[in-house]
Amino acid sequence: MNKQYEDCGLALHTDLYQINMAETYWNDHVHNRKAVFELFFRKVPFDNGYAIFAGLERVINFLQDFRFADDDIDYLRDELGYDEDFLGYLKDLHFTGTVHAMKEGELVFGNEPMLRIEAPLAEVQLLETALLNIVNYHTLIATKAARIKHVVGDQTAMEFGTRRAQEMDAAIWGTRAAYIGGFEATSNVRAGKLFGIPVAGTHAHSMVQVYRDEYTAFHKYATCHKDCVFLVDTYDTLRSGVPNAIKVAKELGSKINFIGIRLDSGDLAYLSKKARKMLDEAGFKDTKIVASNDLDEQTIMNLKSQGAEIDTWGIGTKVITAFDQPALGAVYKLVSIEGDYGEMVDTIKISGNPEKVTTPGLKKVYRIINTLNHKSEGDYIALENEEPEGEERLKMFHPVHTFVSKFVTNFEAKELHHTIFEDGQMVYELPKLRDIQNDVKENLNLLWAEYQRVLNPEEYPVDLSQACWDNKMKNIDEVKQKVQKMSAR
Amino acid sequence: MNKQYEDCGLALHTDLYQINMAETYWNDHVHNRKAVFELFFRKVPFDNGYAIFAGLERVINFLQDFRFADDDIDYLRDELGYDEDFLGYLKDLHFTGTVHAMKEGELVFGNEPMLRIEAPLAEVQLLETALLNIVNYHTLIATKAARIKHVVGDQTAMEFGTRRAQEMDAAIWGTRAAYIGGFEATSNVRAGKLFGIPVAGTHAHSMVQVYRDEYTAFHKYATCHKDCVFLVDTYDTLRSGVPNAIKVAKELGSKINFIGIRLDSGDLAYLSKKARKMLDEAGFKDTKIVASNDLDEQTIMNLKSQGAEIDTWGIGTKVITAFDQPALGAVYKLVSIEGDYGEMVDTIKISGNPEKVTTPGLKKVYRIINTLNHKSEGDYIALENEEPEGEERLKMFHPVHTFVSKFVTNFEAKELHHTIFEDGQMVYELPKLRDIQNDVKENLNLLWAEYQRVLNPEEYPVDLSQACWDNKMKNIDEVKQKVQKMSAR
Repeated sequence: MNKQYEDCGLALHTDLYQINMAETYWNDHVHNRKAVFELFFRKVPFDNGYAIFAGLERVINFLQDFRFADDDIDYLRDELGYDEDFLGYLKDLHFTGTVHAMKEGELVFGNEPMLRIEAPLAEVQLLETALLNIVNYHTLIATKAARIKHVVGDQTAMEFGTRRAQEMDAAIWGTRAAYIGGFEATSNVRAGKLFGIPVAGTHAHSMVQVYRDEYTAFHKYATCHKDCVFLVDTYDTLRSGVPNAIKVAKELGSKINFIGIRLDSGDLAYLSKKARKMLDEAGFKDTKIVASNDLDEQTIMNLKSQGAEIDTWGIGTKVITAFDQPALGAVYKLVSIEGDYGEMVDTIKISGNPEKVTTPGLKKVYRIINTLNHKSEGDYIALENEEPEGEERLKMFHPVHTFVSKFVTNFEAKELHHTIFEDGQMVYELPKLRDIQNDVKENLNLLWAEYQRVLNPEEYPVDLSQACWDNKMKNIDEVKQKVQKMSAR
Repeated sequence: MNKQYEDCGLALHTDLYQINMAETYWNDHVHNRKAVFELFFRKVPFDNGYAIFAGLERVINFLQDFRFADDDIDYLRDELGYDEDFLGYLKDLHFTGTVHAMKEGELVFGNEPMLRIEAPLAEVQLLETALLNIVNYHTLIATKAARIKHVVGDQTAMEFGTRRAQEMDAAIWGTRAAYIGGFEATSNVRAGKLFGIPVAGTHAHSMVQVYRDEYTAFHKYATCHKDCVFLVDTYDTLRSGVPNAIKVAKELGSKINFIGIRLDSGDLAYLSKKARKMLDEAGFKDTKIVASNDLDEQTIMNLKSQGAEIDTWGIGTKVITAFDQPALGAVYKLVSIEGDYGEMVDTIKISGNPEKVTTPGLKKVYRIINTLNHKSEGDYIALENEEPEGEERLKMFHPVHTFVSKFVTNFEAKELHHTIFEDGQMVYELPKLRDIQNDVKENLNLLWAEYQRVLNPEEYPVDLSQACWDNKMKNIDEVKQKVQKMSAR
């Protein structure tokens, strides 16, 4: 970044109201009360059957670096007029809390806390905006990529979206999330360097334009690069591009690895079949056809159903922006707060929209795995002090239609939360990115195919424990009484 | 950024194929030939009548800082296996070219070059990905914001989208673009610091939850902050939120500025009218009602048509992600290249899709302004050496339906390109952000209302000069002949 935009930390990457609330708490001497926030979304994006949690590594880095820089403090004083004493508090602030979180690559469903953060009230409040900014985008893209990879199957999916990404951070972190979701490679060299993701790419139309001739362009490229994928649609794919690629490959023979050709426009189903035939007839049966051009899970499924002869899929805009739903609506809600006597008090937010009523209390999420078939029976959200893994027979019931219920026996209750920070100290070992990608595959193996399909998947059960449900109803009742008292005045 | 992700420059923020092409040119000793690329989109986003060019300041910073860092070179050598001699060339590379561009805030239409870059071939090729990444997003968001602001009108539009933005860069640069498009303020404090945008915000639901009581929460906030906007929908807007806000405001009287209330859920039309009545009856006729909750130009227009009593609009997800079309498809195309004898040769890219055929040659864009009514007659794309401002009678014809034409007299031809860099030296003075926002308003004044409406605007004329058209046809013919020769073999 240019000096003009240099900022030392990201603590100021927050909404103004977080600072105003922190100031209110500080002024009222409640800023150090212990508070617990949970971060979750209500609805899986794209009407998919599951989402993939991502962004934890970026969250960890943010928390470790969380500090207001001197010029942040200057800005808050000189431009926004905050009080010097309060700024003294902000100046010394760093993260001292405890974090429980799912591992990156974990399957996650509506209303399941992905992160639970316990920290002094003002501190934990100031983290909200950045944590949502990170987790919303990473989780969205990992999920979108998994949908596309589901359709691509055993073939190769490559991320080509940087030029259409929503600015630079999205390009690199989106690529990382796409890799978590199952993509094999990226075109973004910086992402390759930062995260160790394999990078891919050969040449563009402009190189053909430079030499004004495909034959010359391909030949020049091949002289300099052993591995060759020729882009064949600059002028005319079947009459000029493919014949020139074949001509150069024949002339250079074993001097190059003629990996194949790339199609970037036109009727990909038709062109790929014709090109395949031409390549085969020329003796290049092992070559691959790479296709790109606004692809997503729908177009790829359609191309496959038409028998398109495509081996490798370059996916850009649609994955890096999650084009059909470019935002995930995760929220960060206070579930418990220290009271006047040091006791913890659960809290709730009511809404005219019943789905938006929060579930109070510290919670854990369990995946209930049937030990006979090794498939998941659903997820179970319980209060912190419950121990479902010790029960022999678990009642699971729908959190809205409560009469929909079942009893599960022969199960393993796999706890999905891990301790990431303890009193400000990181106690978690970051997994390798490749291992996260593998974890996703293993996690998906626990789900029946009906939950995994991209169109109209079955609804995966996410149930509340009886204690969790009862606690929620108790909190709703208390608020109702308070509102009645107010409106009766 | 954490050390793990520290990278000194952004030169590696590119697609791998750019580096492979640069290597091909370097290897073939054509890397220093002069080449000219133009950056443009084909279609205005959102079916809007115009787009607003944004991102130039970020582009300038990128070009000024364009250098491969030592560890970039190490990565390219150790992980990707590039040749040491070529890496020696990359190591010394910096931007030496000439840039013509529209000013930020200029109205731009399909196929108009926003940027034209002349530089040594390998150098100008390596810039493509990052320039598109920047201009696509900034222009998209400035345009979306202008659509929303068009409907908001003289009321206030505030950007509240950070938590739903596609990672951190999008949050801050998107806010800047929204400000260019006409938004008055942002919630993002970092954007406020970096760009001097006014910041806004008071408190969230969590503050009410902390005090478990709206009266207490509002009172505590007001004790600490003179300017008060109370969020009234944590429990029950009309029965609890608004009455508590009024109660606190009455009690504290002139000790605070009771600016108003904020509604963030529920039926905004109904609630705002009821709340307005309650506030008026309590004597707070000057208070404002702020509304938020997934707003965009459609919902705002609907709310206004229902007589909603909303004064200030908080817009998040829909503006910061350009939700209904989250990517702009601008491209970067080679239009001219130095030939073997130092002469410049125009180039074209043909496509099966006629709209995707490029227009060869160095071009300028003129806005043809009728000097009698001070409204624009359309835009005119001419070759570099043409001088439409000297003509008395200008023929303008449709670039697809060429029979649609008109003659314009009494016009001023306002050139839209400005020189930004000359031989690597910046020669442009960056305007203030507030001035860019004002420029947008003045630029829009040149457009008839029919081009500005958000639904089904008239198509604004963007015409090619006769010379530009003839040059394009000549280039198409040459390629056609080449393809025929190839397929006749």
